[in-house]
Amino acid sequence: MKIVRFLDESNITQTGFYIGDNGAEIVSGNIEKGFIKTGTIKTIKEYLPPLEPVNIFAIGLNYLDHIKETSMERSDFPVLFMKATSSVAAHNSTICLPECEIKGPETDFEGELAVIIGKRVKNATVKNALDSVYGYTCANDVSARRWQKYAGENQWVRGKSFDTFCPLGPYIVTRDEIDDPSNLKIKTELNGKIMQKSNTQNMLFSIGEIISFISRDTTLLPGTVILTGTPDGVGFTRNPRIFLQSDDIIKITIEKIGSLINIVK
Amino acid sequence: MKIVRFLDESNITQTGFYIGDNGAEIVSGNIEKGFIKTGTIKTIKEYLPPLEPVNIFAIGLNYLDHIKETSMERSDFPVLFMKATSSVAAHNSTICLPECEIKGPETDFEGELAVIIGKRVKNATVKNALDSVYGYTCANDVSARRWQKYAGENQWVRGKSFDTFCPLGPYIVTRDEIDDPSNLKIKTELNGKIMQKSNTQNMLFSIGEIISFISRDTTLLPGTVILTGTPDGVGFTRNPRIFLQSDDIIKITIEKIGSLINIVK
Repeated sequence: MKIVRFLDESNITQTGFYIGDNGAEIVSGNIEKGFIKTGTIKTIKEYLPPLEPVNIFAIGLNYLDHIKETSMERSDFPVLFMKATSSVAAHNSTICLPECEIKGPETDFEGELAVIIGKRVKNATVKNALDSVYGYTCANDVSARRWQKYAGENQWVRGKSFDTFCPLGPYIVTRDEIDDPSNLKIKTELNGKIMQKSNTQNMLFSIGEIISFISRDTTLLPGTVILTGTPDGVGFTRNPRIFLQSDDIIKITIEKIGSLINIVK
Repeated sequence: MKIVRFLDESNITQTGFYIGDNGAEIVSGNIEKGFIKTGTIKTIKEYLPPLEPVNIFAIGLNYLDHIKETSMERSDFPVLFMKATSSVAAHNSTICLPECEIKGPETDFEGELAVIIGKRVKNATVKNALDSVYGYTCANDVSARRWQKYAGENQWVRGKSFDTFCPLGPYIVTRDEIDDPSNLKIKTELNGKIMQKSNTQNMLFSIGEIISFISRDTTLLPGTVILTGTPDGVGFTRNPRIFLQSDDIIKITIEKIGSLINIVK
């Protein structure tokens, strides 16, 4: 199933199963308890983020080719940071370049597979970790590079938590529809040009290893979102550097999920 | 007013105005819309965290004497990181030493003033920032030092987000009761011995500067918690080092607020 949140034509917030052609069958329920169909079909007027995350964790440096392009070191453990939940944005919505750009462009894209936790979990093993997963969606770990690099003590939160810096969507594809999340093609296009092209099989830490690591003595609540790292091809490591500009269209496509499209302003 | 969340003698979750002697007058409402008294008095059987935070931001290295003891550099900007909201714990509850301690003790205390945002705010100025504040409480920014230091790329999230690593309380003291949050004595005691003793006037970045910094192009939602940094005297910089051990009692006291007490297991 594809779980979509949206405004209907009366501007009412709805959750539904996506049935194609911007239509959805309305459901009641939630990610933790499950959803029940109501039989009512509505048209999606405007996409909303597919959930309201309770926490957004993110993994850095999880693809070898991305580590190489950044000239950073491979880490013994997943590199874990967080993004503020206020940074979520929807499919087809605007990524707003922050005011901090007064010193010149610095806003970069990072196409990533996002994992949505459905069942409360703590101390998951690598083997049983996927039992806690509700589904998957596309994410853009938008990053203001100067703030990421020069904010105090190299903590990445400031540069990665501006409003609209975490587009998610277009919908959550439930776990049963994806046999092997560790073998999905992932691609990022900027104004139609391919910038990132990889496969989730290139992750250094698998989804199971990531969930096991984050859930060590730590409860992952239903509605937790985990971004699993970006492949090579981001903008700031290119020569010349590429940063997002007003009117850019950025599109992240993951096999068996769909495409998350955002416009930059 | 002092806003307290608790279990009453029927184990029902309640919110009330603290009236002393473990009693509270039950209120309806919330931090964003305000609270209305119901006239009913209940006894506090067990404290709960005084709110369910939507995001927990925290500032590192905000007291000069703490920077000196850590041999770190003073930063041009507030050092901003996050803690998972699942790490909150209540007054009188247990701080659980995590399994990661198998390589020896590493769990440390950090007494801090916590700011609770009550009004949605974005791009606050230093001057108007306090208008968004609902109130203040005591916080313990519990930190597993090896994970904080050696987790990938020095990101602090892993070492600071284990369950029970963010005790808050005992209650939220509303802003009107604290004329000047930049002049409050703050003290941490471990088993009755004073470990940290300072005043919030020693902060390098004031509360207004911190809120202004975090809210740059970033919406702070009602229910956001901001820990404002710890003074000198933490355990890991001492010789010999002091780390939390089972049965320790850690008490953080802030003038005009009260004392947050936790036992370690």
